[in-house]
Amino acid sequence: MSGVLEATLAAIRPADAQAVTAARDRLDRLAKPVGALGALEDVAARLAGVAGRCPPPLPSPAAVAVFAADHGVYAQGVSPWPQAVTAQMVGTFLAGGAAVNAFAAQVGAHVLVVDVGVASDLPAAAGLLRRKVRHGTADLSVTSAMSRSEAVQALEVGIEVATALTAAGNRCLLTGDMGIGNTTASAALVAAFTGADPDVVTGRGTGVDDDTHARKVAVVRTALELHRPDPADPVGVLASLGGLEHAALAGFVLGAASLRTPVVLDGVIAGAAALVAAVLSPYAVDACIAGHRSVEPGHAVALRYLGLRPLVDLDLRLGEGTGALLALPLVQAAARALRDMATLDAAGVLERPAR
Amino acid sequence: MSGVLEATLAAIRPADAQAVTAARDRLDRLAKPVGALGALEDVAARLAGVAGRCPPPLPSPAAVAVFAADHGVYAQGVSPWPQAVTAQMVGTFLAGGAAVNAFAAQVGAHVLVVDVGVASDLPAAAGLLRRKVRHGTADLSVTSAMSRSEAVQALEVGIEVATALTAAGNRCLLTGDMGIGNTTASAALVAAFTGADPDVVTGRGTGVDDDTHARKVAVVRTALELHRPDPADPVGVLASLGGLEHAALAGFVLGAASLRTPVVLDGVIAGAAALVAAVLSPYAVDACIAGHRSVEPGHAVALRYLGLRPLVDLDLRLGEGTGALLALPLVQAAARALRDMATLDAAGVLERPAR
Repeated sequence: MSGVLEATLAAIRPADAQAVTAARDRLDRLAKPVGALGALEDVAARLAGVAGRCPPPLPSPAAVAVFAADHGVYAQGVSPWPQAVTAQMVGTFLAGGAAVNAFAAQVGAHVLVVDVGVASDLPAAAGLLRRKVRHGTADLSVTSAMSRSEAVQALEVGIEVATALTAAGNRCLLTGDMGIGNTTASAALVAAFTGADPDVVTGRGTGVDDDTHARKVAVVRTALELHRPDPADPVGVLASLGGLEHAALAGFVLGAASLRTPVVLDGVIAGAAALVAAVLSPYAVDACIAGHRSVEPGHAVALRYLGLRPLVDLDLRLGEGTGALLALPLVQAAARALRDMATLDAAGVLERPAR
Repeated sequence: MSGVLEATLAAIRPADAQAVTAARDRLDRLAKPVGALGALEDVAARLAGVAGRCPPPLPSPAAVAVFAADHGVYAQGVSPWPQAVTAQMVGTFLAGGAAVNAFAAQVGAHVLVVDVGVASDLPAAAGLLRRKVRHGTADLSVTSAMSRSEAVQALEVGIEVATALTAAGNRCLLTGDMGIGNTTASAALVAAFTGADPDVVTGRGTGVDDDTHARKVAVVRTALELHRPDPADPVGVLASLGGLEHAALAGFVLGAASLRTPVVLDGVIAGAAALVAAVLSPYAVDACIAGHRSVEPGHAVALRYLGLRPLVDLDLRLGEGTGALLALPLVQAAARALRDMATLDAAGVLERPAR
């Protein structure tokens, strides 16, 4: 394992239990019935735990990093879209015309696109960080998707991005991704780490018919039989089955956790990457908030395994960071409630129900 | 029926079918797989239908109106809180210390508090509109909660508020409410309009124990037997069973619909009020978006009856408008996607999957 990754893992600490307790106590004293803010109270307590203080700083400003890469498994016919769409959508992100741009503008988040492995060469552009590890992965159903050292290199791209965005003043990071074929690699990762059957975790991605779906399931099954991944060796699993964006996203989560910056996860790609991060450092999950639950069945499996409850559940299946961006105002509202609400005493409510 | 209410009902038109079709067509051509934005695509199409054009204007700026009132049924011991908390929380809203204030600040919405029937007299204050119809309702389990003319008067307060907030430039209205005891009246209204059993629609409100819950169910059952409400006579149902804030909220929804301003509903109080509005004018529902689903069981029953899918589902049970405020950025994001995203053609994606 390399120096940067090792140092990052060494820096990750669990949630601060005292800050979590202080947050729970304060939430119970605020001008509302105990527990009335539901799941947002858990988010507020989690933010306190990551920050190590109560109230935690508002998770603002925020930035979404969209990691883009291509997938050798595309050759197996697992997507109805041309592979060139990965690069075309990167162009659309940079031009501001994608859903991630519309949502980021709405919630006031900055968008950074990272080429960690797009198949074609991309010209330099404002808003694009060029960190290509290789021109797409190899086909995971016939060989390793990448080498172990490439997996580590991509992990460290993610760490670099989390570090740079935090240094730039962001107090909340959001995951985004783009890569035609990446729901197939995600399904393989989720199956490898959770032990779920490929049939259970493989979905229809951006929209595939029954034949293509059956082919995706078969491809994932073949890959698992070929590589016999060992979930205790997450870098090995990444190298065998992952995408370069999965590796970078896992590093992004680890980097954020090491800096105690909360990170909002998008869909199944991020969920699969978070499984990698969680094996590398279980405490990294303490810094994660599940932005949403996508239609992809593997996503729910990954979230259950991670013990995370998604904040938004609206049948999205787009990726790009869209689900994480929709959750951002909810995360910020939770922090605001904890910071800004009066206590019942201050509100003049002295008689109140017993706990 | 009075002039203002009658004129408002006469002005309500169904969703503009052409604008809805144009929105659906455009959503299918945007730079994303068909349907990939899930429930937000329905929100975007609904906004187009309300506005009568595609793309619709952004639902911004937005304002939440918090209608406060007291309930005679409090005498039956249906809440563990002192009744004075209604007025104390109005004071907290005006001082900026409540959850509604924290969330409104987060999403950039204006807060207006309306006294439509608080039991005590409230002094004039900035941010408070004093439109008290009476000092709380009578006990719905022993007599009519209010007279028909008081119900109409409160409906017209809601219409007045929707009209004033729209005239002030708001392009999205949100419902809010405060009233100790109002989940009991809500349960009675939901049962009256949907035919559901009191046992199914009566919840634990801000947190009541088993005994109090059983008493609430019995109170609702007694009230339904006493008044035998006719769902075809919504003003009569309101007068028998409703709260003054329910009546005002129903008017608020009708007023918004008549002005083609979209209205985001909060929890079970708003859901019960929307049932009143829907019987008075079925097309009013076309202007409604369900902000969230609360823990109160009657809320889900009301939403199903109205055919509305809630956007946020996080076990909130606070009211005040908190659930509607959390949904606002999602509604705005849906409108932004429809307005700002490039089409696949413009994004250079010329080959694409068949529909």
